Amino acid sequence: MKPLRRWNISVVGSSSASPEVLSMAEELGRQIMEAGFNLISGGLNGVMDAVSKGAFSVVGEKSGRIVGILPTDRKGDASPYVDIVIPTGIGFARNYIVALSGDALVIVNGGSGTLTEIAYAWRFGKPIVALTSSGGWARKLAGERLDDRHAQAIYGAGTPSEAVKLLKSLLD
Amino acid sequence: MKPLRRWNISVVGSSSASPEVLSMAEELGRQIMEAGFNLISGGLNGVMDAVSKGAFSVVGEKSGRIVGILPTDRKGDASPYVDIVIPTGIGFARNYIVALSGDALVIVNGGSGTLTEIAYAWRFGKPIVALTSSGGWARKLAGERLDDRHAQAIYGAGTPSEAVKLLKSLLD
Amino acid sequence: MKPLRRWNISVVGSSSASPEVLSMAEELGRQIMEAGFNLISGGLNGVMDAVSKGAFSVVGEKSGRIVGILPTDRKGDASPYVDIVIPTGIGFARNYIVALSGDALVIVNGGSGTLTEIAYAWRFGKPIVALTSSGGWARKLAGERLDDRHAQAIYGAGTPSEAVKLLKSLLD
Amino acid sequence: MKPLRRWNISVVGSSSASPEVLSMAEELGRQIMEAGFNLISGGLNGVMDAVSKGAFSVVGEKSGRIVGILPTDRKGDASPYVDIVIPTGIGFARNYIVALSGDALVIVNGGSGTLTEIAYAWRFGKPIVALTSSGGWARKLAGERLDDRHAQAIYGAGTPSEAVKLLKSLLD
Repeated sequence: MKPLRRWNISVVGSSSASPEVLSMAEELGRQIMEAGFNLISGGLNGVMDAVSKGAFSVVGEKSGRIVGILPTDRKGDASPYVDIVIPTGIGFARNYIVALSGDALVIVNGGSGTLTEIAYAWRFGKPIVALTSSGGWARKLAGERLDDRHAQAIYGAGTPSEAVKLLKSLLD
Repeated sequence: MKPLRRWNISVVGSSSASPEVLSMAEELGRQIMEAGFNLISGGLNGVMDAVSKGAFSVVGEKSGRIVGILPTDRKGDASPYVDIVIPTGIGFARNYIVALSGDALVIVNGGSGTLTEIAYAWRFGKPIVALTSSGGWARKLAGERLDDRHAQAIYGAGTPSEAVKLLKSLLD
Repeated sequence: MKPLRRWNISVVGSSSASPEVLSMAEELGRQIMEAGFNLISGGLNGVMDAVSKGAFSVVGEKSGRIVGILPTDRKGDASPYVDIVIPTGIGFARNYIVALSGDALVIVNGGSGTLTEIAYAWRFGKPIVALTSSGGWARKLAGERLDDRHAQAIYGAGTPSEAVKLLKSLLD
Repeated sequence: MKPLRRWNISVVGSSSASPEVLSMAEELGRQIMEAGFNLISGGLNGVMDAVSKGAFSVVGEKSGRIVGILPTDRKGDASPYVDIVIPTGIGFARNYIVALSGDALVIVNGGSGTLTEIAYAWRFGKPIVALTSSGGWARKLAGERLDDRHAQAIYGAGTPSEAVKLLKSLLD
């Protein structure tokens, strides 16, 4: 059988963010795609759009895909940079699916919505990397454990390229 | 129309906890029921079972009901103290529904699963009360704000009776 | 332990219906409540509102409760006759929960949305009673089997009182 | 912007089926992929596995992707022929997402689980094609309307190639 299936990286973050954070997310998306992963996000605005945009700039026939898992039931709500749209129609319960769909999770900034995704990913034992310089819950939770369920804390990464290096070592 | 509908209080907490925490949860359940509220929980073990048990000890024809919103599709998985069982079958996406079903939320201890419920409740602007002496995320988040969406921080309460007093003032 | 828990009857049907169908649903709700069951519905308009209204006319301290499982995340969307509101926020995926929450299901008229609830209830082996005179999928599916999973076909009942008699014999 | 996004075709059918039906599903998957669509299914056994297998036999860098939307939270439960796995963890509420994710739906045989997907797709106005020769709900519902919401009945197609021809004309 052809080695078709790629690792899925879920990137979670705020639906509105500063230009600096958005540019960091864009760089992260580009590098995730170049590393040969599929990119998963919530498919809407802010960090979700920026990370998909970065991935879109290098996506090609030999790369992974850009997946957006929407809360709404309308495909048209997706960021234009999302390739494969999953309009779940289940509201923010879709955060659970974003967390479960990643083989690993990267946090970029993030408020309370993002926090649900981080906590779900932790609950299910996914490796989690926080982009510390992006602020928000990423900065607060880098190096922390959410409960005693797992020994390994949330990883901190200073830059998108450090995050992707970590993902490669964790998933290979 | 008869004034039938009561306020719903969602209590969230760990599925396993120390005897001290369980006894605190039981006392909380008793007082929530005596205050005339409906009690909502995830319907399983630990804090969920204990808070339902406390409510059950005083439930009666003139009181509210004890609702359990299960992750599984089997009614039989519910704590025996739950009156009305909603077996959602949607796994831990049910945490979203536990948060949405409460007019207010009380946190008793709590790990990563509980954290998803707290973050969802915050996201939707529900008043949240943390039983600080119960430890876990309750202690860590009392007095904190999860993001800039709301000005009012999570309330801290030292005892079940202080928590219920707060709920009454917040909902009346 | 006090015998607190009652059987849950899920009633499914169209969100808009003729006066005849609504009046039949209202009578059904009244009789379900008088029989000592909890009533579960989707909590919105049409058959859901009418069946809750009928139940509301006789609800009391010694009766079961009237539960509404909403697709939206807003308690205020519920029929005023619903006592315990569960605003799931998961859109029409809530139909799955309406089906799972019933120990048995009654169909009143019904279009495609109702059909998802009937098929889910069948999938999980719930006893199903169709109010044949109400038309819609109730009439089409009375006496039918949805697949080979179960031997017992969907029951047909000519009147609300016949339906409730059947429910009593099936659940006692 | 590069024209990256493809149409999504959701194929729904039984998790166990006869060799004839499975072979029809396999041929359908092959033709869906050759037509340049993404293939969506529930990602498990029977028709889901067979349609993914057919697609897998011709998938390539220039084709669409093979998506599996699982009820469980374990990626490993997916058919080996699925490329992009979405382990929803929400049980059979995932049928709602399978229906919503398709720009059109094809029915192959099908029991009660499949019926929920058909009814959801109808509810949301998706074009539906039934492979009549596959039996089950596909045969029963070809040419039928599930309620008065839409004027156009479910299309019937005698063969996989006729079904794909129909999909092309409906989506182009």
